[in-house]
Amino acid sequence: MELQPWTYEDDQLVADMNIFTVRRLRGRSGLTGRTGPITRVESSAWVNVVPLTGEGEVVLVRQFRHGTREFTLEVPGGLVESDEDPGVAAVRELLEETGHAGSPPHLLGRVTPNPAFLNNHCYTYLIEECRRVAEPSPEIGEEIEIVLRPLADIPGLIASGEIDHSLVINAFWWFFGPDPARCRPGY
Amino acid sequence: MELQPWTYEDDQLVADMNIFTVRRLRGRSGLTGRTGPITRVESSAWVNVVPLTGEGEVVLVRQFRHGTREFTLEVPGGLVESDEDPGVAAVRELLEETGHAGSPPHLLGRVTPNPAFLNNHCYTYLIEECRRVAEPSPEIGEEIEIVLRPLADIPGLIASGEIDHSLVINAFWWFFGPDPARCRPGY
Repeated sequence: MELQPWTYEDDQLVADMNIFTVRRLRGRSGLTGRTGPITRVESSAWVNVVPLTGEGEVVLVRQFRHGTREFTLEVPGGLVESDEDPGVAAVRELLEETGHAGSPPHLLGRVTPNPAFLNNHCYTYLIEECRRVAEPSPEIGEEIEIVLRPLADIPGLIASGEIDHSLVINAFWWFFGPDPARCRPGY
Repeated sequence: MELQPWTYEDDQLVADMNIFTVRRLRGRSGLTGRTGPITRVESSAWVNVVPLTGEGEVVLVRQFRHGTREFTLEVPGGLVESDEDPGVAAVRELLEETGHAGSPPHLLGRVTPNPAFLNNHCYTYLIEECRRVAEPSPEIGEEIEIVLRPLADIPGLIASGEIDHSLVINAFWWFFGPDPARCRPGY
């Protein structure tokens, strides 16, 4: 058996939620020819930023999140606007959410947030030498507290669960890289 | 300004997609009292597994994914069923997707896939000493190729983008841990 791509037909918009659309399609297996229902969520790209100050601190944001209904500690980020370069979006989101700006954005990595049903990618940028240059200008309904933490605290904040957003953990994976020597439980 | 939790009212089901529901609510800021529209996607928990053989290989799965419409290389995983323990789900998904079983599942970590709009968590388990014990029994429409790769190849597969699923990268973060000494570009 060699896997084959699927094809899609009967693409129907189920819901336009503004931040994404929800669609129902019929998928056809290239392997078996059989068809079945497919759910797809289409969104523009997402971006997040690892913003570092000259003093080795990370500029984090604390927010109440409507999905989990809990406060989170995250890196700045958001939706890439249509026709916007993801690096430009990173600079914009950092400025809007925290009033900070720094060096030109450096792409650290790209992930698919959930290829099973989401069509989009999330890009992570590093911005160094960040400093406060303006008042934050969050969108209506965005309530954000700015939290500076030493870079060396980040692995502990992830281990303790204080940082638990999958894409934020991805961002720091891109930054720190893996340590095969420390892999558990002793490989 | 001290951040406050939000409250929610007028919770309406917009779409039941089987794997999740999409809801539209009105949120009320505890800080300002202002209200605004909220989108929420409710799903049961997700689970993934880092399955290792006695020979130090990872049992991976290759699939065509309907979100990105590309082939992916991932660890086994799926939806936790209602009232199912996530560790039991990890063992079940590993067996269904790959026909493998091993040691009791060991919880490596837990993330929120996207707390901005998703309510759920994703749990990562380690299962060691995996070996083929049965024929795979994928769900209808699941077409899966089983791929064994040496554990030492994983960081390179992530760096090259061959593995790019955010939650799979999270799984390996839990396993390997970060290497602050290798963080870029030289902190």
